[in-house]
Amino acid sequence: MSIPILLVFSLLFVASTASVQDFCVADLSKSDTPSGFPCKDAKKLSVDDFVYSGLGVAGNTTNLIKAAVTPAFTAQFPGVNGLGISMARLDLATGGVIPMHTHPGGSEVLVVIQGTICAGFISSANSVYFKTLYKGDIMVFPQGLLHFQINSGKGPALAFVSFSSPVPGLQITDFALFANDLPTELVVATTFLDAAVVKKLKGVLGGTN
Amino acid sequence: MSIPILLVFSLLFVASTASVQDFCVADLSKSDTPSGFPCKDAKKLSVDDFVYSGLGVAGNTTNLIKAAVTPAFTAQFPGVNGLGISMARLDLATGGVIPMHTHPGGSEVLVVIQGTICAGFISSANSVYFKTLYKGDIMVFPQGLLHFQINSGKGPALAFVSFSSPVPGLQITDFALFANDLPTELVVATTFLDAAVVKKLKGVLGGTN
Amino acid sequence: MSIPILLVFSLLFVASTASVQDFCVADLSKSDTPSGFPCKDAKKLSVDDFVYSGLGVAGNTTNLIKAAVTPAFTAQFPGVNGLGISMARLDLATGGVIPMHTHPGGSEVLVVIQGTICAGFISSANSVYFKTLYKGDIMVFPQGLLHFQINSGKGPALAFVSFSSPVPGLQITDFALFANDLPTELVVATTFLDAAVVKKLKGVLGGTN
Amino acid sequence: MSIPILLVFSLLFVASTASVQDFCVADLSKSDTPSGFPCKDAKKLSVDDFVYSGLGVAGNTTNLIKAAVTPAFTAQFPGVNGLGISMARLDLATGGVIPMHTHPGGSEVLVVIQGTICAGFISSANSVYFKTLYKGDIMVFPQGLLHFQINSGKGPALAFVSFSSPVPGLQITDFALFANDLPTELVVATTFLDAAVVKKLKGVLGGTN
Amino acid sequence: MSIPILLVFSLLFVASTASVQDFCVADLSKSDTPSGFPCKDAKKLSVDDFVYSGLGVAGNTTNLIKAAVTPAFTAQFPGVNGLGISMARLDLATGGVIPMHTHPGGSEVLVVIQGTICAGFISSANSVYFKTLYKGDIMVFPQGLLHFQINSGKGPALAFVSFSSPVPGLQITDFALFANDLPTELVVATTFLDAAVVKKLKGVLGGTN
Amino acid sequence: MSIPILLVFSLLFVASTASVQDFCVADLSKSDTPSGFPCKDAKKLSVDDFVYSGLGVAGNTTNLIKAAVTPAFTAQFPGVNGLGISMARLDLATGGVIPMHTHPGGSEVLVVIQGTICAGFISSANSVYFKTLYKGDIMVFPQGLLHFQINSGKGPALAFVSFSSPVPGLQITDFALFANDLPTELVVATTFLDAAVVKKLKGVLGGTN
Repeated sequence: MSIPILLVFSLLFVASTASVQDFCVADLSKSDTPSGFPCKDAKKLSVDDFVYSGLGVAGNTTNLIKAAVTPAFTAQFPGVNGLGISMARLDLATGGVIPMHTHPGGSEVLVVIQGTICAGFISSANSVYFKTLYKGDIMVFPQGLLHFQINSGKGPALAFVSFSSPVPGLQITDFALFANDLPTELVVATTFLDAAVVKKLKGVLGGTN
Repeated sequence: MSIPILLVFSLLFVASTASVQDFCVADLSKSDTPSGFPCKDAKKLSVDDFVYSGLGVAGNTTNLIKAAVTPAFTAQFPGVNGLGISMARLDLATGGVIPMHTHPGGSEVLVVIQGTICAGFISSANSVYFKTLYKGDIMVFPQGLLHFQINSGKGPALAFVSFSSPVPGLQITDFALFANDLPTELVVATTFLDAAVVKKLKGVLGGTN
Repeated sequence: MSIPILLVFSLLFVASTASVQDFCVADLSKSDTPSGFPCKDAKKLSVDDFVYSGLGVAGNTTNLIKAAVTPAFTAQFPGVNGLGISMARLDLATGGVIPMHTHPGGSEVLVVIQGTICAGFISSANSVYFKTLYKGDIMVFPQGLLHFQINSGKGPALAFVSFSSPVPGLQITDFALFANDLPTELVVATTFLDAAVVKKLKGVLGGTN
Repeated sequence: MSIPILLVFSLLFVASTASVQDFCVADLSKSDTPSGFPCKDAKKLSVDDFVYSGLGVAGNTTNLIKAAVTPAFTAQFPGVNGLGISMARLDLATGGVIPMHTHPGGSEVLVVIQGTICAGFISSANSVYFKTLYKGDIMVFPQGLLHFQINSGKGPALAFVSFSSPVPGLQITDFALFANDLPTELVVATTFLDAAVVKKLKGVLGGTN
Repeated sequence: MSIPILLVFSLLFVASTASVQDFCVADLSKSDTPSGFPCKDAKKLSVDDFVYSGLGVAGNTTNLIKAAVTPAFTAQFPGVNGLGISMARLDLATGGVIPMHTHPGGSEVLVVIQGTICAGFISSANSVYFKTLYKGDIMVFPQGLLHFQINSGKGPALAFVSFSSPVPGLQITDFALFANDLPTELVVATTFLDAAVVKKLKGVLGGTN
Repeated sequence: MSIPILLVFSLLFVASTASVQDFCVADLSKSDTPSGFPCKDAKKLSVDDFVYSGLGVAGNTTNLIKAAVTPAFTAQFPGVNGLGISMARLDLATGGVIPMHTHPGGSEVLVVIQGTICAGFISSANSVYFKTLYKGDIMVFPQGLLHFQINSGKGPALAFVSFSSPVPGLQITDFALFANDLPTELVVATTFLDAAVVKKLKGVLGGTN
């Protein structure tokens, strides 16, 4: 019966092998497309293309915000390319804050692993939703809305966040306004802030103009 | 030959009539769904469900920002429900500004009809793209990114904007931060602004807490 | 405090820069994909990649239909690549007509800027929706349905149209039937038109066979 | 060991049962939405919700076009609701023709079961692609493009077609132009056809105005 | 200046409030649709609609598989409805196993919080990818592919998993084959297993027929 | 009048030609992307890119399962690339079986052309839906769920199946479990099967380890 067995293999496996696109591990050396990066050759893949250990290490929180965001998006973890999901690790030292920000490209779910986090978001209708979250609590932040996370406990806090996109993006409002070369007069005109306030924050955050 | 004609009608029209979903004009009296509102009964539709005249009237710019946004989203123009597109009209009096804002749910294209507009956006990588636009110029603002429009000319300006969603949303950063009940201490913690600045802007924009 | 500031930059900006895909300006020199063209290198972009001035110039209406369609699709305006939106300009001289056509790839919203336009579409259920539109009126044409625009006023008319796709396509029925090498016998068989009518229109529109 | 077994059931089945949305059989008595009809109660479903026998019967081809289209779209086969696929049966008597038409909402693949069919489509770039197909041949017609099928053999022909949407729609160009109340003057203005030709076809196809 | 302020509110807030669809918290009392459940009235929402504490409690692992899956899908956590993301908690006692299964509706990312987990999946091309994961490691399982998680350490293990859908579904192969009324003869015919093996497993897992 | 005619051509055809993406025939020599393969140069296409004759030939059923699946996915039929649809041919000799399997990437509709087929699927809620299908019957199998087809008649059976994806994938459960190098101990741990049963099936199906 070995011949029929071989036949079943030749027929059915040729079929499935030849039309596989279960996944598309990013070949970051090629040009990105609107749907993600071109795929690495499937024959060269190993399990390590689907596993990432970069979130196992705490981010460095010795900084202005006493916090760190460590992403596992397509650029860091090419295995998520095209799969509609990604992750990041949030480390918040005591007093740490992830400042007001948005993810232009995806919704987020956060799970608290350690500590206490005050998290919230603001809707298009200008309603505010915030709450203190404890270990094991999860909270969802809908796509594109301003949100924040604050360590509201007495020790360090750790959370993992997941996104509905492999490339959710991250736009921290303060950095967008004050940490680049957007002219002060345009910031003033579009935010109601005084020029002095804008210039001070540009100074703190490294912005120019 | 009238019998065959009737047959072609009975056969082919039953087929097409019975399975139409070319469009889905919103029945705003029903509950929304993630894909949009339930459809109005097709038998009750007229051309007026697909036409909207609300953008033919200039918005009232006698206000703080000397500008007005007049939307034609699903709520105002139910004909766009489910069709992946919508519009709005921007009126900017002399000195008018559409403050820094995002649309969480869609990309935008703007066309200048009258006047001169300085428009720009900031990317996730914190690059700034802005330019003075003249009559007939168009500019695209990718989904979810902070952007603004300023009347940079000497007279009034008019633009029409289109969105890649019938419900793009609108989140004006200043209003999200200062025009609701988000506690001052949370604004301070997440924006690097001083409490005095926050309280002043809450005063101007009607926020509390 | 400069060291922590640098740290916040190195940590947070590496994260956001490295995983940006806010947009994907088309590199038209590469092969298209089902989701659009590969992206230009983000480091080489300027604001001019997001601005297009081609719609500021009236199309030439000295032609058979006394009208012109000037597109700003991906091919003309690479900034819309992957963003789910595009535009076009319609110029209609007195008596001008955009003949019956479809956009296979997207829904359309039209806004009248000048003049008077009679616009309409036909549904799959064979219902007809048409109306005379005036300055500021908008009308939506659902994806893939036959529709038309006629200058029904006494002077020239101008409209801008937006699409729910960067590549909506354009199929003018008359051109599809009569302005190529589709054999006359196939046109006759599939349209109920007489061969003489078909041949005459092929003559006018430049078709062969 | 029966208690653990029960536990595995109570835990794992509650989980999976409570969050099932494998499918969404249409409840046609409720209002449609942009994503399809609301779902029938899963507890009331049987295999007959997923099976349809309506395509097992030849359509009546005793009509003007000597052909019949028998759809299995959501309206006829509620099991495909929300699943991104549907089917139809094409019967073409000798000399039968499915006239030039489009499906606004989906691409189509046709497989010839019996007879010989000349099928073709026209692209947005106005290229014509047509070929004579024999038993077992398949042909794809991209979304929204004009296409046709002609029985080019000596006996009856049968084909099954599948669509990339449960509600692909069907717009037969001749019927859209001549079989409704679209005024003759608008048809003339938008098609280059003479009024006499339009009126004659309206007469044949039952149109008015 | 209070009147202009009121004006800016009346104009801009009417606009944004009236067209909000930032999110769509599920109203589970209504019928599901292909895109998810109808939305709860936005005026009745509170932050608790966006927070879920059910994953803070370890699942009961006193069962056959010494493991528990605790979902936070739409049914348990209505806030994720329509947002393209959801989560679940995996508890694996020593020796615990999440048996071979698929999620028909979404890709998954797993992060190990405690313990050691051997996880793997099998591709359509029949390649096997598995690895031992430690605390902080993440692994992605592409949509619809067979995969498993085994506690390969000496103590209990804990992981959180996220999905690219609010309703990813869960189909455990053994339960699908042996824990329902699928007739033994059909299981035998479609799996190559002996009837005796099938009947034994039906006995263990509670299947009939 | 020839000049205006040329003008209409130059204007309107440049527009439509330059922005065509009606379809994207796969260039299989390039790297795949998450949305499919890059497109072949439109100028080099002919009708043969949209027609495939490979399903006109019966598959070889002289094998273990007495059945054959002949796919027309992107790899075999590049014309379906990016179009959201594909097909396959099922040949079942007397006693033939398509074993329990899933398609990770798409829903399926089957139409019986010849013979009698017992087909069924199992839902996430573990409900079983199966029925004997006769010539002309169609059945839908929702995305990602386990399903099977058995020739339950006395002669050969033939069916065509269509998928809601050009790359639906195919994962035959038995092959995934027993026809590769997945270690026996992992199969045992994740399926409740005895090692002896696993080893026997690995022997039959060619698996190792």
